[in-house]
Amino acid sequence: MVTTRQVRLAQRPTGLPDDDTWEVTTDELPAPGEGEFLVEIDHISLDPAMRGWLDDVPSYLPPVRLGAVMRAQGTGTVSQSRHPDFPVGAAVTGTFGVTERAVSDGTGVRVIDTSIAGPATWLGALGMTGLTAFHGLHEVGELAAGDTVVISAAAGGVGSVAGQIAHAAGATVIGIAGGPEKCAWLREIGFDAAIDYKSENVLRRLREVAPDGIDIYFDNVGGEILDAALANLRRGARVILCGAIASYNATTPPPGPRRYMSLLVNRARMQGFLVFDYPEKDAAAIASLAAMAAEGSLVSRETVVDGSVADFGATFLRLFRGENTGKLVMCIAEIY
Amino acid sequence: MVTTRQVRLAQRPTGLPDDDTWEVTTDELPAPGEGEFLVEIDHISLDPAMRGWLDDVPSYLPPVRLGAVMRAQGTGTVSQSRHPDFPVGAAVTGTFGVTERAVSDGTGVRVIDTSIAGPATWLGALGMTGLTAFHGLHEVGELAAGDTVVISAAAGGVGSVAGQIAHAAGATVIGIAGGPEKCAWLREIGFDAAIDYKSENVLRRLREVAPDGIDIYFDNVGGEILDAALANLRRGARVILCGAIASYNATTPPPGPRRYMSLLVNRARMQGFLVFDYPEKDAAAIASLAAMAAEGSLVSRETVVDGSVADFGATFLRLFRGENTGKLVMCIAEIY
Ligand SMILES: NC(=O)c1ccc[n+]([C@@H]2O[C@H](COP(=O)([O-])OP(=O)(O)OC[C@H]3O[C@@H](n4cnc5c(N)ncnc54)[C@H](OP(=O)(O)O)[C@@H]3O)[C@@H](O)[C@H]2O)c1
Ligand SMILES: NC(=O)c1ccc[n+]([C@@H]2O[C@H](COP(=O)([O-])OP(=O)(O)OC[C@H]3O[C@@H](n4cnc5c(N)ncnc54)[C@H](OP(=O)(O)O)[C@@H]3O)[C@@H](O)[C@H]2O)c1
Repeated sequence: MVTTRQVRLAQRPTGLPDDDTWEVTTDELPAPGEGEFLVEIDHISLDPAMRGWLDDVPSYLPPVRLGAVMRAQGTGTVSQSRHPDFPVGAAVTGTFGVTERAVSDGTGVRVIDTSIAGPATWLGALGMTGLTAFHGLHEVGELAAGDTVVISAAAGGVGSVAGQIAHAAGATVIGIAGGPEKCAWLREIGFDAAIDYKSENVLRRLREVAPDGIDIYFDNVGGEILDAALANLRRGARVILCGAIASYNATTPPPGPRRYMSLLVNRARMQGFLVFDYPEKDAAAIASLAAMAAEGSLVSRETVVDGSVADFGATFLRLFRGENTGKLVMCIAEIY
Repeated sequence: MVTTRQVRLAQRPTGLPDDDTWEVTTDELPAPGEGEFLVEIDHISLDPAMRGWLDDVPSYLPPVRLGAVMRAQGTGTVSQSRHPDFPVGAAVTGTFGVTERAVSDGTGVRVIDTSIAGPATWLGALGMTGLTAFHGLHEVGELAAGDTVVISAAAGGVGSVAGQIAHAAGATVIGIAGGPEKCAWLREIGFDAAIDYKSENVLRRLREVAPDGIDIYFDNVGGEILDAALANLRRGARVILCGAIASYNATTPPPGPRRYMSLLVNRARMQGFLVFDYPEKDAAAIASLAAMAAEGSLVSRETVVDGSVADFGATFLRLFRGENTGKLVMCIAEIY
């Protein structure tokens, strides 16, 4: 028997989650059975989409049940094993939950090569985050050299990878992010221009930096920034609906994109996708991202917050305050 | 010299056009020069899109200039000709404007075969209206047998043709229209179900008649009906943005589609198009529609209003009151 501290959903939040949302419990784990293994988790991914899983609304994944351990991706090391593919000592990634240890039968778990990149990067540029950027741009955006690509939440996990993929593919890349530091960093990693939505008029600035219009808008944010992008589409544009973080904590239904008829005038499309939609292309995508990282055309950055699982709730809120640059990850390895 | 009465744009309207919007003038036409011909117009098409051309806003076509003859498609007969392709007596269709006679050099003009169908039908099911339905469903909607197809303004020109194309292709077709008569007619022409948006809750009724969700939503209307359709999408759905008549006369910016994130959850897309976008496919489309009409699987209906060009303004308003079933057309042949 081993014990694990874990974070459970105590109460569904209205608006921003707070302390009442979460409960930390210490639970015993059964020893791994035949075909199972035990993982000591070291890093936990913090994802804006988690906010959606807290609402009792049917979506692409079922809501987290009240009282259940919060769903989360993580990385860790196998410490006991009765599964041939996951030997003791293997570094792995999977949906283990917000917990210190987990027993798994290997479903959805992959071994990671930590000589290529550290665990945080396997949750970021070389994980779901990188796949989201990659599949969004290629499968939905039909990215091509010469495209003008605009990305919101550009200095975040998905956005910063997306910008670098687009840059490497020969596109002109414009990032939208909050604050001068983030904008400066975007220029450093190859963005052709950066717009600080907190101090600039995005609609007008887009018109300046993309005078011929936008071919691809990679939307992580929704709200007014989406409208500003719609107002600047070029004929045949693709709006990639990746997320809408600006409204994840809304307590009244947020307005829709007022300028959607720009899609008609410009014969453009707006299309949603989920990172899970292209499993047969994941391996090639990760290989491509790893190659970019190796050759230096992909800078993978993470904001790593040290803490225990009990800090999950507070750390999660950082996403909505923009307190991360690159992928937001918790490191719990130093604590237990 | 011949004279022609014609309708000019006197003043840009705010909201619904009224008498001040239009001016009727009587003008002299020069005799057709070499390569030109004179057309006696018999039918004029009334299109919701005309409302957009009255605003001084750049769009897919330039606005009608103040003082210019109102842009309109029409049909007529060649009465004088110095153009080999358009001999005297030929029935033709083209963008002649709201006028009784026009001199043309043949640009955008086609000869029509009135033994196949009358002139009003050449403005409707076998004209731009039919092409809009056809290209929208095939090029944007990727219509396939077995699809569940929902169409708004279903008893209008475009909608009624779209429904019949979808039905003939083996789709399940649901129409949304105003009033019991229109709904009854939709069932007559092959729609599997009809929803009267004036007396029924569209969102709830869609859930009933399309319990597995919508594969294609052909949107002519926008507004709340678009939102109701978005709330009922099936995975991989296509929302064809054809028009948004519910907001064409809005004096304040109408809200956007609040439920657009359904596109993400359902990996769906919303895509705009214009009927002019597929010129290389027009002939085949018209041939297909004519064949459907000949074999009886396409009922082409027009609401034909007899009058003079001076009645254009009042007749145009009928579109926004839903006073047409099928394509709305003016017949001016009996008058002058
Ligand atoms: N479709 C999929 O399968 C899929 C998969 C993964 C992620 N996603 C989506 O992708 C987006 C990015 O996710 P991520 O994990 O990479 O997170 P992230 O971008 O690293 O973190 C969120 C960032 O969003 C920005 N932000 C927060 N509130 C905002 C607001 N009200 N207006 C504008 N910007 C705001 C903040 O940056 P600033 O400082 O610039 O404001 C913050 O750093 C999210 O919408 C997420 O839901 C979708
Ligand atoms: N993309 C393109 O290239 C293209 C080309 C042609 C037409 N279009 C668009 O296609 C649509 C249909 O055009 P059409 O020529 O066939 O006209 P139509 O459908 O024959 O006439 C308009 C109909 O719209 C309905 N309507 C009017 N106001 C409405 C409202 N507020 N809410 C809901 N329904 C309303 C009325 O029917 P009810 O009695 O049912 O309310 C009316 O009969 C229009 O949006 C038009 O702009 C687009």
